[in-house]
Amino acid sequence: MKIIYSDQHYHQSPKLELAGGDLVPSFENPSRAEHVLERVKKIGLGEIITPDEFGLRPLLAVHDSGYIRFLQTAWQEWTDAGFKGEIIPLCWPAGQASDVLPRHIKGKVGYYAQGTDSNITDGTWIAALAAAQSALTGAALVCDAVKNGHKTGAFSLGRPPGHHAAKASYGGYSFLNNAAITAQYCRDQGIEKVAVLDVDFHHGNGTQDIFYDRDDVFFASIHGDPMDNFPYFWGHASECGTGQGERFNLNLPLGNGTQFQVWREALKNCLSAIDNFGAEVLIVSLGVDTFEEDPISAFKLKTPDYLVMGADIADLGIPTLFVMEGGYNVEALGVNMINVLVVHHF
Amino acid sequence: MKIIYSDQHYHQSPKLELAGGDLVPSFENPSRAEHVLERVKKIGLGEIITPDEFGLRPLLAVHDSGYIRFLQTAWQEWTDAGFKGEIIPLCWPAGQASDVLPRHIKGKVGYYAQGTDSNITDGTWIAALAAAQSALTGAALVCDAVKNGHKTGAFSLGRPPGHHAAKASYGGYSFLNNAAITAQYCRDQGIEKVAVLDVDFHHGNGTQDIFYDRDDVFFASIHGDPMDNFPYFWGHASECGTGQGERFNLNLPLGNGTQFQVWREALKNCLSAIDNFGAEVLIVSLGVDTFEEDPISAFKLKTPDYLVMGADIADLGIPTLFVMEGGYNVEALGVNMINVLVVHHF
Repeated sequence: MKIIYSDQHYHQSPKLELAGGDLVPSFENPSRAEHVLERVKKIGLGEIITPDEFGLRPLLAVHDSGYIRFLQTAWQEWTDAGFKGEIIPLCWPAGQASDVLPRHIKGKVGYYAQGTDSNITDGTWIAALAAAQSALTGAALVCDAVKNGHKTGAFSLGRPPGHHAAKASYGGYSFLNNAAITAQYCRDQGIEKVAVLDVDFHHGNGTQDIFYDRDDVFFASIHGDPMDNFPYFWGHASECGTGQGERFNLNLPLGNGTQFQVWREALKNCLSAIDNFGAEVLIVSLGVDTFEEDPISAFKLKTPDYLVMGADIADLGIPTLFVMEGGYNVEALGVNMINVLVVHHF
Repeated sequence: MKIIYSDQHYHQSPKLELAGGDLVPSFENPSRAEHVLERVKKIGLGEIITPDEFGLRPLLAVHDSGYIRFLQTAWQEWTDAGFKGEIIPLCWPAGQASDVLPRHIKGKVGYYAQGTDSNITDGTWIAALAAAQSALTGAALVCDAVKNGHKTGAFSLGRPPGHHAAKASYGGYSFLNNAAITAQYCRDQGIEKVAVLDVDFHHGNGTQDIFYDRDDVFFASIHGDPMDNFPYFWGHASECGTGQGERFNLNLPLGNGTQFQVWREALKNCLSAIDNFGAEVLIVSLGVDTFEEDPISAFKLKTPDYLVMGADIADLGIPTLFVMEGGYNVEALGVNMINVLVVHHF
């Protein structure tokens, strides 16, 4: 398995995030990638390569162009307006609001934001862009494997994560939806059917948003019930897709305190659905905040469970790209995440 | 002119608010009411009375019952969940989101919020309720004046303000929409036509929301262009009402830097429209953050201009209730606000 990694993630190093009405040190910070990289090296998971350059075109294939422009220019506009802190939204278009994009940066931020936890900093765009290029490099490897009849996998070891980023909004530490960008890239490379499996504790609302009306990318997610968990407004079992996309979106929300036995049943349901769909490529949004000691999540998975999870996914037997998402117990992050991958060690 | 005032506003005393990515001392704080009350006493504007008790029914006549329940219980649920700070939203239903109300308080907060500037504290509900009861007491006086053929006015001197609070959301320091609650109260007392004139620098998006589809309450607002100013997503000139309410919503956004001469032309347009509408009662959402030295606004009105504003409004010649809204230069707040009222001194 090849691992794609870039040091550019250090550019996204938010000082603080809003939590419980206080500004606290950000849970999503560079030490996360450090711990995973350290573990990759320690067990010799595979060759570590730097990302190739794919430009903006694959990003614009899933994200709104105005939103991309906003991400590129927000920090400059914010500091030009005289603000000293990192970018946190002030207000947003709740209820019966106008859909006109405001001119002032404070308005633009609210227009494109889903929440207050994802500070935009001076380096957010650089880091998010690098994470997307890493994921695309992995996607290119996987597409080659399909063409050559290999079963290879790849791991995009990067941050910030991506699965909460929707067509035209950021949130949940996510700015560019790496999983969705790569799924679309695979489609554009001629792969007919692509599946995204999201095993992060939090529902991948951004990925759902991007493919909700499509039948060529199947999205399956196992996550904490949104009645009780972030992102709260997406991820119900009743959200099955719309139009042509109906029945191509599978949400399996589980209650707080869920242990691996129950979680694994949900995984098997997802894998079975993906198999029935006939996916030629699998993208895994790999979050390990399902871990029992994660500080901001509520499942009870243990470190050895991630080995079983990895083996179950490997049994699907199709070329697979793993894209790093959440996981906030940084001490355990490396071991848990790599446990999912070791069985794919070819 | 009778002034209705209650000390209960001290219960809303947020420590901090999010601004420019930092937590800063809240602009909307008890000293605002103190300065206005001091000025009322100094010039002997009129008798100061305490509010009567109108209960929840007039609030529920304009606000969603689930929203009112949320305001009553939010602080308890927040502290029960272990959070230590004041309530600031984490995320919200952006874009294609589920309309299901989450069970967790963090989800509920995002469901009912418009922004991050309006901290809910342990005393928010008590203070907001008292402000609404003060405004209702003033509305009852004005309704009596209509019935008895008098031209009396009243001034509800209270906070937190209300004009950003919509049917089912809070924001812009507003939790209960005092102006809308009193307009509806007047309707329920048999007044056929009520007008709300909003002269606060910021668009009264909550009041607009509440009456947007109705032809019995006319809403007119002069405010900073939402392209450049809070609340950013409401207040465009093109927002004229819907259904039966079409042409009963008048927005006059003005550019940053507007001086009184131009502002006054907009006021005359509003007063003319209100006169044509045939309003029997006028509710004025009285913010004086149009002042040239206001720290969070962008018009250029001077202290003597508020005397002219008051005289122009008085010329309409109908019973009028003034409800206190914004104004954040606290030193000048008392003089500017009372300048609007002195001509109504009967």
